[in-house]
Amino acid sequence: MPQFTIRLDCENRPGIVAAVATCLYDADFNILDSQQFDDLETNRFFARIVFEREAAIDEQGVKFLLQEVQESFGMNIVVHDHRIRRRVMLLVSKLDHCLVDLLYRWRTGELEMDVVGVISNHPQSALQHIDFGDIPFHHLPIDASSKPEQEAQLWEIVENSKADLVVLARYMQILSNDLSRKLSGKCINIHHSFLPSFKGAKPYHQAFTRGVKIIGATAHYVTSDLDEGPIIEQDVERVSHRDSPEQLVRRGRDIERRVLSRAVRYHLEDRVLMKGNKTIVFPE
Amino acid sequence: MPQFTIRLDCENRPGIVAAVATCLYDADFNILDSQQFDDLETNRFFARIVFEREAAIDEQGVKFLLQEVQESFGMNIVVHDHRIRRRVMLLVSKLDHCLVDLLYRWRTGELEMDVVGVISNHPQSALQHIDFGDIPFHHLPIDASSKPEQEAQLWEIVENSKADLVVLARYMQILSNDLSRKLSGKCINIHHSFLPSFKGAKPYHQAFTRGVKIIGATAHYVTSDLDEGPIIEQDVERVSHRDSPEQLVRRGRDIERRVLSRAVRYHLEDRVLMKGNKTIVFPE
Amino acid sequence: MPQFTIRLDCENRPGIVAAVATCLYDADFNILDSQQFDDLETNRFFARIVFEREAAIDEQGVKFLLQEVQESFGMNIVVHDHRIRRRVMLLVSKLDHCLVDLLYRWRTGELEMDVVGVISNHPQSALQHIDFGDIPFHHLPIDASSKPEQEAQLWEIVENSKADLVVLARYMQILSNDLSRKLSGKCINIHHSFLPSFKGAKPYHQAFTRGVKIIGATAHYVTSDLDEGPIIEQDVERVSHRDSPEQLVRRGRDIERRVLSRAVRYHLEDRVLMKGNKTIVFPE
Amino acid sequence: MPQFTIRLDCENRPGIVAAVATCLYDADFNILDSQQFDDLETNRFFARIVFEREAAIDEQGVKFLLQEVQESFGMNIVVHDHRIRRRVMLLVSKLDHCLVDLLYRWRTGELEMDVVGVISNHPQSALQHIDFGDIPFHHLPIDASSKPEQEAQLWEIVENSKADLVVLARYMQILSNDLSRKLSGKCINIHHSFLPSFKGAKPYHQAFTRGVKIIGATAHYVTSDLDEGPIIEQDVERVSHRDSPEQLVRRGRDIERRVLSRAVRYHLEDRVLMKGNKTIVFPE
Repeated sequence: MPQFTIRLDCENRPGIVAAVATCLYDADFNILDSQQFDDLETNRFFARIVFEREAAIDEQGVKFLLQEVQESFGMNIVVHDHRIRRRVMLLVSKLDHCLVDLLYRWRTGELEMDVVGVISNHPQSALQHIDFGDIPFHHLPIDASSKPEQEAQLWEIVENSKADLVVLARYMQILSNDLSRKLSGKCINIHHSFLPSFKGAKPYHQAFTRGVKIIGATAHYVTSDLDEGPIIEQDVERVSHRDSPEQLVRRGRDIERRVLSRAVRYHLEDRVLMKGNKTIVFPE
Repeated sequence: MPQFTIRLDCENRPGIVAAVATCLYDADFNILDSQQFDDLETNRFFARIVFEREAAIDEQGVKFLLQEVQESFGMNIVVHDHRIRRRVMLLVSKLDHCLVDLLYRWRTGELEMDVVGVISNHPQSALQHIDFGDIPFHHLPIDASSKPEQEAQLWEIVENSKADLVVLARYMQILSNDLSRKLSGKCINIHHSFLPSFKGAKPYHQAFTRGVKIIGATAHYVTSDLDEGPIIEQDVERVSHRDSPEQLVRRGRDIERRVLSRAVRYHLEDRVLMKGNKTIVFPE
Repeated sequence: MPQFTIRLDCENRPGIVAAVATCLYDADFNILDSQQFDDLETNRFFARIVFEREAAIDEQGVKFLLQEVQESFGMNIVVHDHRIRRRVMLLVSKLDHCLVDLLYRWRTGELEMDVVGVISNHPQSALQHIDFGDIPFHHLPIDASSKPEQEAQLWEIVENSKADLVVLARYMQILSNDLSRKLSGKCINIHHSFLPSFKGAKPYHQAFTRGVKIIGATAHYVTSDLDEGPIIEQDVERVSHRDSPEQLVRRGRDIERRVLSRAVRYHLEDRVLMKGNKTIVFPE
Repeated sequence: MPQFTIRLDCENRPGIVAAVATCLYDADFNILDSQQFDDLETNRFFARIVFEREAAIDEQGVKFLLQEVQESFGMNIVVHDHRIRRRVMLLVSKLDHCLVDLLYRWRTGELEMDVVGVISNHPQSALQHIDFGDIPFHHLPIDASSKPEQEAQLWEIVENSKADLVVLARYMQILSNDLSRKLSGKCINIHHSFLPSFKGAKPYHQAFTRGVKIIGATAHYVTSDLDEGPIIEQDVERVSHRDSPEQLVRRGRDIERRVLSRAVRYHLEDRVLMKGNKTIVFPE
């Protein structure tokens, strides 16, 4: 049975739920889940609705059905047909814990996506022990002088792969403003600190120096404003004076991989809506 | 502006959301929040909807407006007018940490309720340092022989107080089956263990003997089946081999008070729906 | 039986444990607990040792016994006789959740201290519902012009009370550099953010604006460098897009009170040692 | 430089720390870490001490040095030379999340051990995508009739491999009493519930039926008393009414792998001491 999720937002006013629900009901859809958020800060209405019906229909058909409601309320609507899996490109440097975790969750079916490629600034031999199977691997070395050229190649690979989502799974290169802008809204990064604490380089060493008792990690959408993108998910763990910077790095690996995998899953399940520089994440 | 929350459940079939939302819209209500749960286990639909309008109306009026929809879908509907605060009776024995916490949260406005009385099997002098203000205090001593009589008095006080909710805030007496039944669905207990572990007496000592590394507490609705009522909320804390039973008791106080206060708040905010022996708790 | 805790630190070299343990054994002490930390960063040795004996002795006696070892290793040693309770002065403004919590834990015996007074920039009538019992209450109003004078009075009260510890239990005034210095090492503050995030004013509003998914609180020793003092304890809670700044404030109250009460307890139990701008906190 | 950890326990009496520390100092050892626990329940003393020296020495040498102290206090002492890595045998059925995680942590150096083999009741083809490298894989199918024979083979493989530790990484077979006894103290199991809740089969389904709000996992030493062995580590995660049994299973995978990997690491780092049916786990 065709199943869809829509994410919608519009200026808040009475009758939105009634209009959308009636429209879906009239088209023989059954609503499976529905979550809404009335934002008092901006007076906007946000919703995520999951629905299905027996008769055949595709994303265009759903959009067409909702068109009248959409126009009368001035809605942004994104439709996702569950039968179409998102195409995901994974970027990594040497540290492979996030990549290994994402691939594992993809193979067990926890992350419903198609992995269309892996891009690294290191050769595949630096990532031994990983079974890439049929996944194309792209080695794009980078240094100070080759950055513009490397990013051009990277962007071309992403474009050609028709990737819907790019995941920086500990890709330890700062993207240029230009590339960040191109990837805006479709690129998730894992930052190895509990943002906004310890922006920039070597956050675990910064955490060690400051003597915090808890460390964390942050998954966020990439924007041209480094470490300032909309936060999707964060998590933390308790540490102590006994933890050296190296031990913080080790503990951090566990936090990073669970934060990133959750953020990617929330994105794939259409749980994340943007509200300026913040996210709305409808819970499972 | 009059504001209401309804909790509803019915057999699941298409059109419920559309029907309710349209009914509310036609009556000039604006929906502020709406959460639903389609239960695959029982094929039932559960929802919590918050709405308001400018024109005057009361609970009876809302019920009347929803009557047609209610009948056509065979719905159970509970309507709560936010202007009517729930009347809450607090029961306690000697350990007063939960009572102190509930009273504090009530005074700060975090728990929107009217405290209609405190009942204890100990005299008020056992609870010194607590400012009861105008709250009636009822001392109902109990021993093996006086239990039926004491419970009759207790029930009479609850009835006369028109309490909507009874909270066993570490009331260390086991209610009879008869009284449990009378209070069914309107009585919340805090059990000082992570149920279903360590049912019965002295759970912290049981936890010590078993050598668990985490302890917890459980808030649940009281039923005649001791320690088996529907769970509303649980929480835990990490412990170690260094913790004596007395230290577990101390740590447990913190867990108990936050678990109980959350459960009471969820109840007061109409977040809790019953599904057999389980609860649905719509998140904040 | 007289019981003591010592905190000691010195340059690390072999034989420290043997020397101290032998010295205590020779004086008929039994070691009840002993925790050490060899800091690789500074090559210093830190320890907390708890011991007792049957024969009468006081802090001076213990210091005298340890004098030879102390000198030969160049140790800093702080001795605490468990029979001598720390004298604690509590400072508060209008928000009383931390104060209420500290007083409750003091009355239950969880915090073993003598509360020698409460100082507030608001009158006692602003803190109704609190049973101060015999605790002296000092109202020290403050405004921009009266600050030096008010701090002079405050310091005089602290001095006269012979307080060992000053706790800023949501005292919403920034201490002058001069007063901070005087209180250095004996003054604990609760900051209502997960430092180093959101320093300065209105951290919950800053957290709301940034859209973080977790908020926290930090207890630290006060230094003249605002919000930069050595961190003793931190804790966090998960929040969501549904949380308004006001709801973050409410959630924060729970975090603040448990973080502050733990930090005070760790201090009272001699678990905290200073290492530059960081703390070593020996666990329970 | 040779480095050692000893775990020791004996009846508690004054002078133990002094005697051991002096003995180590006299033999030119430097103590790097020392943690002790005076158990009031049993009046026993437990300690974990890490030390090193420049001059060559092995486990036998350390034992010999400590022999006099050991005898005079009636101590149990276990010596571990850090240069000798523990030999670990991993057992698994079809669900490979714990195995994958342990192998990853072994490859990154987080788990300092030698993996001497993998035993499964399923063929290696059931565990595709795993890079076993040089690790011997043993397929030991089992059914009701072949159990004694299969366990005999299993035991022979363990014996021949000279394994110090056997890890049941979701090995979904109940060991016989006889094999459990043989493996006693050297076999860690991960149970997929927060013991003692939900012993026996299908704990996530039990948790679903009971409607708990938090689920967990437990790593424990295997004894002949099923699900009753000494607990090494536990952890939990929050769940909701939205979680089907299948979703609980998915969430549980994350809890299980982190609980098991921590328990194995604590064991490898000699942090775990036995005290009857409980463990003492000295923290990192």
